[in-house]
Amino acid sequence: MSLRIVEVGPRDGLQNEKVPIPTSEKVEFISKLVEAGLKEIEATSFVSPKWVPQLGDAAELWPQLPPGPTYSALVPNSKGLERAMEVGVNRIALFTAASDAFTQKNINMTVNESLAVFAEVIDRFRSVPGGYIRGYVSTAFECPYAGKIAPTRVLEVANRLFELGVDEVSLGDTIGVASPKEVHELAKALKEGSSGSLQRVLWHFHDTFGTAIANVAAVLEWDVFGGFDSSAAGLGGCPYAPGAAGNLATDDLVYFLERQGIQTGVDRAKLAQASLSILEALGRSPAAKAQRAQLASAE
Amino acid sequence: MSLRIVEVGPRDGLQNEKVPIPTSEKVEFISKLVEAGLKEIEATSFVSPKWVPQLGDAAELWPQLPPGPTYSALVPNSKGLERAMEVGVNRIALFTAASDAFTQKNINMTVNESLAVFAEVIDRFRSVPGGYIRGYVSTAFECPYAGKIAPTRVLEVANRLFELGVDEVSLGDTIGVASPKEVHELAKALKEGSSGSLQRVLWHFHDTFGTAIANVAAVLEWDVFGGFDSSAAGLGGCPYAPGAAGNLATDDLVYFLERQGIQTGVDRAKLAQASLSILEALGRSPAAKAQRAQLASAE
Repeated sequence: MSLRIVEVGPRDGLQNEKVPIPTSEKVEFISKLVEAGLKEIEATSFVSPKWVPQLGDAAELWPQLPPGPTYSALVPNSKGLERAMEVGVNRIALFTAASDAFTQKNINMTVNESLAVFAEVIDRFRSVPGGYIRGYVSTAFECPYAGKIAPTRVLEVANRLFELGVDEVSLGDTIGVASPKEVHELAKALKEGSSGSLQRVLWHFHDTFGTAIANVAAVLEWDVFGGFDSSAAGLGGCPYAPGAAGNLATDDLVYFLERQGIQTGVDRAKLAQASLSILEALGRSPAAKAQRAQLASAE
Repeated sequence: MSLRIVEVGPRDGLQNEKVPIPTSEKVEFISKLVEAGLKEIEATSFVSPKWVPQLGDAAELWPQLPPGPTYSALVPNSKGLERAMEVGVNRIALFTAASDAFTQKNINMTVNESLAVFAEVIDRFRSVPGGYIRGYVSTAFECPYAGKIAPTRVLEVANRLFELGVDEVSLGDTIGVASPKEVHELAKALKEGSSGSLQRVLWHFHDTFGTAIANVAAVLEWDVFGGFDSSAAGLGGCPYAPGAAGNLATDDLVYFLERQGIQTGVDRAKLAQASLSILEALGRSPAAKAQRAQLASAE
């Protein structure tokens, strides 16, 4: 079995962090991720620096990215796309959700309005050679404002993204509350009704309540995945629950997959060091369990 | 679906903790666990205070336990049993493993020799009205000294325990390395070959590498469980990897089960406070993800 791991730490992991990380430290963090064997990295976001100051250096960072992996960047709209294209970004990620209440609060648009932005950006982006587009579907299980989301609704949004021409969708348990039962329900809905290839579906779990690895295990029981998003050290705390855990940690994901007999090509010891370096820059202690175990066993 | 949660924090969680916890604080911690709704608690161990000073107050603690739940205590041998019986313990837990290398290092006996001790203790204990016996099978997946353990070996030891007359077995992933694939293999072996009732099999996961909840989910796919052991706040760090995570946190287990639609009768907010109280006594920060999320959402 082969699957992709999309490392989202440099973007999703850092975007809400208050301690400013200099561009040079980001380059070093990403270099360590590359050395650890990660092959796909979402490196930054071309969102307005006014909204996300931490990623305000996207245009400076991009040309300094170490060679090897495939890099992508989030773009919020046509303006962000222009900035991204100027520095040669050819893999972009766009953001929407399965819940209007969520997009309204986050990007001040309904889901439909955000899809109109997708259409515009995709249209402009088609000219880019090798251009590749990911569409994020946040709140794929539950919305902090609107409650539980029906699998049919997630399927509907994913299918509209495929029809707009995205190359993959990433389904996010944005607040990290889902459990395997819900994963099975959504995987089943996708298997029965997806208009895109089932291998173009990626899963983006948060580990707020410690269910992320169990959810990955549930996904693996279905033929509905291209891979998983994760974040070194589990960076990316939930903005809706300050102090809670963040993204599924790449450290935990890699341990789990390898133990299940699925090769990842990632060196766990080097990954633990990469995670440690960014935690030190942020003034944080290791929280991802596999990272803590790895560091402990190396002592 | 109904299943048992056996809270092992006061015994397994505390036994390796260096900061001495006064008996009165243990009583308070256990009282909070009871208020949170936990119905089975392994309260202490009648091991020699020389070996485990933290639990040296077992005989003082036992009469002070708040009424309500079912309490049990670990007894290492006939001497411990006498001390336990003196204060009226009628639910005991005995300790062995699936690996000779592990029992040799821990209790200076082979597995066979430890089973001879079981036989002796069980014989003596039969006179106790309502006496109930648990047998721990540690290293049910992997031994820190001997490596991977075959499911057939675990089955063999579990069956010998059932034949000796234990009422239940608790299968431990002592170093917290297993993943669902291995759980499925062991559950299958038990389903096919257990000489005891499949509802007398409990599972005891450690979360060293973050796989514990996924392992619980795997167990639930089989009809081979009476319940799960867990420890408030995830106490009970792995002595083989200092700094690594400990037992499966009761906080994470309860969240997971409830989200899967399985009623536990445990109040998560009260449980988070119980976990917090013992962490504060130990000078530790919350690490269990569901506890962190619960505390964050209450702010």
